[in-house]
Amino acid sequence: MAVYTEVTDEALAEFLTHYNIGSMVAFRGIAEGVENSNYALKTTQGDFILTLYEKRVDPADLPWFLGLMEHLAAHGLSCPLPVRARDGKNLNPLAGKIAAITTFLPGVWPRRVLVEHCEPLGAALARLHLTGEGFAPKRANALGPDAWNDLLQKSAPQADSVQAGLGRELDSMLHGIVANWPRGLPSGHIHADLFPDNVFFLDGEISGLIDFYFACTDIYAYDIAICLNAWCFEKDFSFNVTKSRALLRGYMAHRALSEAETAALPVLAQGAAMRFLLTRLYDWLNTPPGAMVTPKDPLDYYRRLRFHNAAKGAAAYGL
Amino acid sequence: MAVYTEVTDEALAEFLTHYNIGSMVAFRGIAEGVENSNYALKTTQGDFILTLYEKRVDPADLPWFLGLMEHLAAHGLSCPLPVRARDGKNLNPLAGKIAAITTFLPGVWPRRVLVEHCEPLGAALARLHLTGEGFAPKRANALGPDAWNDLLQKSAPQADSVQAGLGRELDSMLHGIVANWPRGLPSGHIHADLFPDNVFFLDGEISGLIDFYFACTDIYAYDIAICLNAWCFEKDFSFNVTKSRALLRGYMAHRALSEAETAALPVLAQGAAMRFLLTRLYDWLNTPPGAMVTPKDPLDYYRRLRFHNAAKGAAAYGL
Repeated sequence: MAVYTEVTDEALAEFLTHYNIGSMVAFRGIAEGVENSNYALKTTQGDFILTLYEKRVDPADLPWFLGLMEHLAAHGLSCPLPVRARDGKNLNPLAGKIAAITTFLPGVWPRRVLVEHCEPLGAALARLHLTGEGFAPKRANALGPDAWNDLLQKSAPQADSVQAGLGRELDSMLHGIVANWPRGLPSGHIHADLFPDNVFFLDGEISGLIDFYFACTDIYAYDIAICLNAWCFEKDFSFNVTKSRALLRGYMAHRALSEAETAALPVLAQGAAMRFLLTRLYDWLNTPPGAMVTPKDPLDYYRRLRFHNAAKGAAAYGL
Repeated sequence: MAVYTEVTDEALAEFLTHYNIGSMVAFRGIAEGVENSNYALKTTQGDFILTLYEKRVDPADLPWFLGLMEHLAAHGLSCPLPVRARDGKNLNPLAGKIAAITTFLPGVWPRRVLVEHCEPLGAALARLHLTGEGFAPKRANALGPDAWNDLLQKSAPQADSVQAGLGRELDSMLHGIVANWPRGLPSGHIHADLFPDNVFFLDGEISGLIDFYFACTDIYAYDIAICLNAWCFEKDFSFNVTKSRALLRGYMAHRALSEAETAALPVLAQGAAMRFLLTRLYDWLNTPPGAMVTPKDPLDYYRRLRFHNAAKGAAAYGL
C-alpha cells in the first residue's frame, strides 16, 4: 500500500489537457495496490483512477493489459475501462513514468471473506475466462512453472533463515509439482492475481474486478486454484471447504470443468501456493528496512501448500 | 502515509446506519496523513472522508478538534465539517477505534511549493486565526516549548548516532530558544501543522485546510513561523525570501503584526524548527524496521534551524 511517485499539480493539469474528461477537482493517493502508484482523481466530469506504472511492470506489457481490460469492459465485464486521450492513446508519460487513466468502479473489497462472497466470485471468474476468449493477443505467464526454479534459486541461500530446512524442502516440493504439472488443459486469459482486494462488491453482488497487471494466457483451472488459495483459507490456515464448494459452484454455473481439470485441482493449487510463496519469500528476504511496503510472511503460503500436498483429489475442495 | 486500521464492509455498513448520508458506494484507503487512518468514502449522497483516530491522538482532545472545525466551517472557513450522526454525535466507535465522518474538500495540495502559493497561504492562515477567535474552549500546545526538553531527553542518548555531537548541540540551542521565548504575544487557536499536504488549492486559490489534529491555543506568530519552515525552504535547504515575503504579505493583509511579533520571528522560527526536529528525531530513532511509515530525516530541520539561528531579525524573512 503505497504511492511511490508524487505527481505535481502542474504536471497533472498538463496531463489532463490531453484528455476529454474535464478539469481536476481532487486528487488523492490511494493506499492500496503494491505494484503501482494509484490516485483517486475527481474531475468536473466524474471519478477516475490514475495509475503510474512502477518498475515491476514491464512497459512492453502495458498495451496488452490495457487491451484486455478494454476488451473485457466492451463485452460487459465490469472492470476499469482505460480512458483514451484525444489522440487515441491510453498510455501517456507523467512524472517520469508511464500512466493511464481508467474509469472508477463502485464497491468495496471484502476485508473479511464470507461464504456469501465465494459463489459470486466463482461466477465472475468464469465470466472473465469466457469474455476473454475474443481477445486474440497472448501473453505468457512470467510467473508460471517455468519461472519457479529460477525464483527459488534467488532465495535459496537465505531461505533457511526464515525456517530451518525451508530451501531444500521447497526445492523438493517444486520439482514434484513441476513434474506433475498438467498439460493440455483448457487455457486462455486468466487474471492470475484475483485476491479479495481486487474484487469489489456492492449490495452483495460483484461490482467489478480490478488490477489486471499479472493477467496472462494460461490454464483456466490454475486461476481457480489461485482463488482457492486466496479466498478459502481462514486466518488460522484451516481450509474452509464450504467456501471452496461455493466458489466452484459459482464457476461451474457458467463454465463446466472437465474431468481432467477437476483431477488436476490439487497440483494446480500446490503450484499456485508455490508461486505466491516464492515471490513473497523473495520480497521477505530483499525488502530493505524502511521500505514503503511491509513484506508479507511467505510462510502463510507454506501452510497452504502443506494442505494442498495432503489433498487426495478434487474431493478435498468439495467436488 | 498509511491505513493502520482495516474496516470490514459489514462494520462500515453498520456504522453508516447511524448517519443520514445515504448508503455506501465506494470506500478506499487514502495514502496520506501519518497519524490517523483515512478513507475516501463515497455514498449515494456524495463524497466524505472517514477518519479513524490512532494511538497518537488523545481521545480526550477529539471533541475540541471537531468543535474547532465545526466552528471554523460554520464561520466560512473551508475545512472538513464533521458530520453528525442521527443522535447528534460526531464521534462514534468503529473497528475498535473512535471515528468521524467529515465532508470532502475539493482541491490538490501542492507537491511543489511555488511563490504563487505563499500569499494565499498567508491569507488563509490569518483568516484561520481570526475565525477561531469566536471558539471559546482552549487547548494547551502539548508540543510547545515546555515539552521540548523532555522530548529531547528521550532521544539524547542516541542522538549522536544521527550526527556526531547532535545531542549536546540541540541541548544548548534548546535552552537558548526557551530562554528567549517571547511572552505576551497575541495568542489564540493555531493550526500548528500547516504543511503543504494540509492545504488544498483549486484553480490557483485555496480550497480548504485540513488535519487539525495538532491544533491548539498558542502564539499566532508561532503558526506563521511553522509555515515559514514548512513552505519557504527549497529542497537544498536554502531559504526563499520571496516566498517568505509573499506569505507574510498575505497574512498581514488580513491581520496586522505588531512590532513585538515581527521582532520575535527569528526565535519563533527557531522554536518551530526545534519542535519538528525533536519529533522527527524521536521517530527516526524509534520507528521499527518494517513499520508502515518511513520516518523523515530529522536533519532536514537541523539545517533549517541553523538558518534561523543566523537570522538577525525580521529582515531575514523579508520584512
